[in-house]
Amino acid sequence: MTNPASDDLKKPVVGAARRELSSGRADLLVREEPLLLVIHGQQLLTMRTPGRDEDLAIGFLLGEGIVARAEAIASMQAQQGDPDAQRTDELHITLRSAPDSLTRSRLARTHEIRSSCGVCGLADPATVLEGTPPLLPGVPRIATARIQELVLALQRRQELFAATGGCHGALLAGNDGTVFGFGEDVGRHNALDKAIGQAARSGAELATTIAVLSGRAGFDLVVKCLRVQIPVIVSISAPSSLAFDLCSAAGATLVGFARGAHHEVYCGAERLVP
Amino acid sequence: MTNPASDDLKKPVVGAARRELSSGRADLLVREEPLLLVIHGQQLLTMRTPGRDEDLAIGFLLGEGIVARAEAIASMQAQQGDPDAQRTDELHITLRSAPDSLTRSRLARTHEIRSSCGVCGLADPATVLEGTPPLLPGVPRIATARIQELVLALQRRQELFAATGGCHGALLAGNDGTVFGFGEDVGRHNALDKAIGQAARSGAELATTIAVLSGRAGFDLVVKCLRVQIPVIVSISAPSSLAFDLCSAAGATLVGFARGAHHEVYCGAERLVP
Repeated sequence: MTNPASDDLKKPVVGAARRELSSGRADLLVREEPLLLVIHGQQLLTMRTPGRDEDLAIGFLLGEGIVARAEAIASMQAQQGDPDAQRTDELHITLRSAPDSLTRSRLARTHEIRSSCGVCGLADPATVLEGTPPLLPGVPRIATARIQELVLALQRRQELFAATGGCHGALLAGNDGTVFGFGEDVGRHNALDKAIGQAARSGAELATTIAVLSGRAGFDLVVKCLRVQIPVIVSISAPSSLAFDLCSAAGATLVGFARGAHHEVYCGAERLVP
Repeated sequence: MTNPASDDLKKPVVGAARRELSSGRADLLVREEPLLLVIHGQQLLTMRTPGRDEDLAIGFLLGEGIVARAEAIASMQAQQGDPDAQRTDELHITLRSAPDSLTRSRLARTHEIRSSCGVCGLADPATVLEGTPPLLPGVPRIATARIQELVLALQRRQELFAATGGCHGALLAGNDGTVFGFGEDVGRHNALDKAIGQAARSGAELATTIAVLSGRAGFDLVVKCLRVQIPVIVSISAPSSLAFDLCSAAGATLVGFARGAHHEVYCGAERLVP
């Protein structure tokens, strides 16, 4: 971030790396580094901000429909990389039951899902959520004033963003304001994965949870939320047409441009109460 | 975008779709729809904002190192999809010479490169640019005042953003302010692809061009610029650590937080003159 007090640069910030700029002064940049996920031999490489790889992996596996519950993961073993030897950080994941053929095919196409590509019959938004349990209608109820509070709760936690200005954040909370999960990352989808992973680990009931996103509500983020049955998605910015269509079809509540006292309800207004 | 005058909604905006919100009023959302690129039989599916698929494809092929020049593309044939029949928009691309094995392997891994994944030996930032021609040292020279002008030139062109608030933009220009390429899209990388494609089509000399990005300078965007030899990258927001490392290693000029009269030079300051 520009012009931090020089003392700030001495404090270690998780997820930030110090670099020397042209001017000679140092700055903190958000770390963007590869992580290799190895799931029963299948390899998936992702760029992410290091620090909470296990939360990231749990949220990722849940949001891609690879596992239905965090408890389906038997073990995770981290292996630190070595840039000098061109060896990437690795996280080896073992599931309680070996993946069946459906799960293997989901894993195989995960790269495409994870990207902005979405190779999976998206011409019909219904198929991307096939096999996903339906949302609970009308649950939870949220006081409209709570939306602004949750956005502030997200922003207060974004320490890496405050230090670097270069990352996104996501927060999962209940309708009473209890925070179940939070994540920051150079990738928007990773920030949401970390928040989902943390909430799932703590045993939170995602089906009554509200997701708050620091950026736009695009297709990729909305699909993740709907796969884990998060029924309310609040974005500080705009939704895309496909995100809107998916939320409408799934009966989710989609709120955009949540800034200060203002917000725009795109669909699913029945969950909002004065 | 919130609260446009209702008259505005009657004007068609390329790349925007009208949706009815919970309140009953209509709004314009940025379109996010799949496109299938078919290159000598190899299929790549991407989400993008429709409208300039040919520029997108040219920029994409250049930025991923599949072709070295726009002239290497012999023909492009669009085939409109049909959502009711679950048929995606397609663009069939024929290259002048059939892809060799290196190009085929690049195409095969393109999904990963395109995503935020980056499966290609990223532990060593040097390898991702292997085979890429080096940048011209010290070229072009840019007056520092030009940076603010170029950011304004980008923002003035962002009509889809003005209508929807939900997309990114990219601009390519010369050091005298001549604009060679511009793109808007729901995906940051697509916006840059469109700008690169348009500039390449027009015969612009990319090796003396400045790229201006509406968002953060992450690894994926920086790699695209360096692959087509764009030597100066200006971002309105923060770079990541990996973007910085790649630009430093390649001798590129990286400018961040270009807002109003302020900007931060991360590396390559020798191209900037008072």
